[in-house]
Amino acid sequence: MKSAAEQLEVIKRGVVDVVTEQDLAKKLEKGKPLTIKLGIDPTASDIHLGHSVALNKLRQFQDLGHKAVLIMGDYTAMIGDPSGRMSERPPLTREEIMKNVETYKEQALKILDKDRLEIVFNGDWFAEFDFNEVIKMISKFTVARMMEHDYFDKRFKEGAPLSLHEMLYPIMQGYDSVMIKADIELGGTDQRFNVIQGRYLQKESGMEPQAGVFTPILLGLDGKNKMSKSLNNYIGLNDAPEDMFGKVMSITDEMMKDYFELLTDVPAAEIKEMTASMAAGENPVNIKKRLAEEITAKYCGKEKASAAKVHFEGLFAKKEVPYGDNTFKWDDKFSGKDAVAPAELLTVLGMAPSSSEANRIVKQGGFTLNGEKITDFKFLVKKSALPVDFKAGKRKYGRLV
Amino acid sequence: MKSAAEQLEVIKRGVVDVVTEQDLAKKLEKGKPLTIKLGIDPTASDIHLGHSVALNKLRQFQDLGHKAVLIMGDYTAMIGDPSGRMSERPPLTREEIMKNVETYKEQALKILDKDRLEIVFNGDWFAEFDFNEVIKMISKFTVARMMEHDYFDKRFKEGAPLSLHEMLYPIMQGYDSVMIKADIELGGTDQRFNVIQGRYLQKESGMEPQAGVFTPILLGLDGKNKMSKSLNNYIGLNDAPEDMFGKVMSITDEMMKDYFELLTDVPAAEIKEMTASMAAGENPVNIKKRLAEEITAKYCGKEKASAAKVHFEGLFAKKEVPYGDNTFKWDDKFSGKDAVAPAELLTVLGMAPSSSEANRIVKQGGFTLNGEKITDFKFLVKKSALPVDFKAGKRKYGRLV
Repeated sequence: MKSAAEQLEVIKRGVVDVVTEQDLAKKLEKGKPLTIKLGIDPTASDIHLGHSVALNKLRQFQDLGHKAVLIMGDYTAMIGDPSGRMSERPPLTREEIMKNVETYKEQALKILDKDRLEIVFNGDWFAEFDFNEVIKMISKFTVARMMEHDYFDKRFKEGAPLSLHEMLYPIMQGYDSVMIKADIELGGTDQRFNVIQGRYLQKESGMEPQAGVFTPILLGLDGKNKMSKSLNNYIGLNDAPEDMFGKVMSITDEMMKDYFELLTDVPAAEIKEMTASMAAGENPVNIKKRLAEEITAKYCGKEKASAAKVHFEGLFAKKEVPYGDNTFKWDDKFSGKDAVAPAELLTVLGMAPSSSEANRIVKQGGFTLNGEKITDFKFLVKKSALPVDFKAGKRKYGRLV
Repeated sequence: MKSAAEQLEVIKRGVVDVVTEQDLAKKLEKGKPLTIKLGIDPTASDIHLGHSVALNKLRQFQDLGHKAVLIMGDYTAMIGDPSGRMSERPPLTREEIMKNVETYKEQALKILDKDRLEIVFNGDWFAEFDFNEVIKMISKFTVARMMEHDYFDKRFKEGAPLSLHEMLYPIMQGYDSVMIKADIELGGTDQRFNVIQGRYLQKESGMEPQAGVFTPILLGLDGKNKMSKSLNNYIGLNDAPEDMFGKVMSITDEMMKDYFELLTDVPAAEIKEMTASMAAGENPVNIKKRLAEEITAKYCGKEKASAAKVHFEGLFAKKEVPYGDNTFKWDDKFSGKDAVAPAELLTVLGMAPSSSEANRIVKQGGFTLNGEKITDFKFLVKKSALPVDFKAGKRKYGRLV
């Protein structure tokens, strides 16, 4: 086992915050394999690159000789972590959850080392709880303590609905730490509050409190929000190689550094070099291709990543339609019509969320028909001219036949 | 069965508030026996006259032909109703609770008609709850809704501890109404919030919401606070006849009207008459004796009430010691001393709660020794003068031997 100092250096790479560093160091100095906890709520069927940041960190702990415990929050998933969401999520059924658990497991094993991994379900203990035990557990927490959580406080003050059961979530996550006797809990920075409840409950149970290690929140493809399934700005671990590659290519140049650091194993020195050469005038597209290839290779293998790259370059060279799915039949969508305006076309085909947004896209020159930019609102796409290829904004392609 | 209008007249006597009167009238108009709910938390061993106000109202409903359901909150007692308390109550054990249940039952039957009564335990349903059912139940409530409860809001704003589990109390009480399909819930005015949660949960369950009938809060012997065991300002249903009589005699003249109305069956016209004759100059003591006798007779029988009256009058006539228990041995209390000052005497013998209070009693002339008022602080009660009788304030007598 490496020394505590050497381990600390590895652990702290790409980490935003540690609670507390002193506690973390003390645990590492024991020189024994520690129990590292990461919780995942199987609320969707896909793990995406946002989740992979903490999973990568967990893998590092495994490589340092520690034991990873992946908690499948099958029970907490029925509530849904309110952290980072301003509205309540409808609870999932047990069946939906267990289906998600299976796909999650398979995807997490793309990153984690199976040999140093234990997968547990928090339903194993929470399903055994009776009302009395719930009361005992939550009686240790005050409303004031819960309101220290930014999201709770904000929602309460803004009059947005904050259901009582949502307050149970951080407590249950904390209780998981007691049950598995976690030494360290990993999570995004939005997990800070929940991890601290775990420290508190462990202390209450006479244990040494876990240390919290917090990774940054990965921005989604929109460059503004946290990567999330519900915002549809994510790259899934199970995405097809071409999709994965294409999606990475759609991020802004500013996001590249973070993506390199948090999603690839490219050494820090090399990342620094690339940033420098970009500043010196190199075309960012070349470096972005490297990023896309690295990420795609990690989940789909080198061969498929190379093929995805070739595919991507082909699209731009030959102006092929990148998403084969977006082929629509005129008669399905515009039955009885001879011609439609560009904005109507985009709205009906789901390329724009609203007609005002469709108008904006056309006005700003984002709409092209067979490669030609169309900004004239009086222009009509005619049925007699089919088939036509069109593009909306940077990455939405379609074909109307 | 009486008409709805006739029933309403009986029900509304001595009632502060009905939620809603329309709902109540609608239910009575059905002309069928209704289910009337009253919940009691067996958190202490005695029922006192404060509880009897709602119990008397429940008896009226029984006499009108309705079915009374007395809910023993064996499960909710583990939380304790936070209504009306500014601090959290330590939870009771199951054993303590079940012991209280037995004595409660026996005492409640002094007021209620056994034939139209069902006694149920809310542990019958709550003990069967799993965590998931708790989550489902509380997910119907928001933090904002709970904060509409004055006591929650006040405690939260003042920074007094408000534990999460206390918020479950009103929800559980509401759920009781769903389980027994209550048509009407009775309670003191401090139960308003809880009863409204029952209406809400019944509606959510597709039932017609219960009506709430609220009786006034009975003042305790101190004339300031709600009658309560913990403030030791109560008259217990199980008090000895002499104690009951004596305690009623200690209330202020202003409280008599409420006590007549809420605790006796004396007709309204007679109460009015007595109030008038008091205003015209009659000695209130005579009327207070009538009150004390009525109340004592209700719980101990007429014979014992008469004896208690004779006993009480004898005390004042002969200056006997009214509480035989208050006989203390000098050597038990002041071992090694030859003399003690009045304030010390009162404090050590438990006749005053603190030495400042003892000093106040002496200063204001409330301390008498063998019938003589002692206000001199330098005065010493000497061991050589034993036995001595003393009095502290209006009603505390003792003998030192």
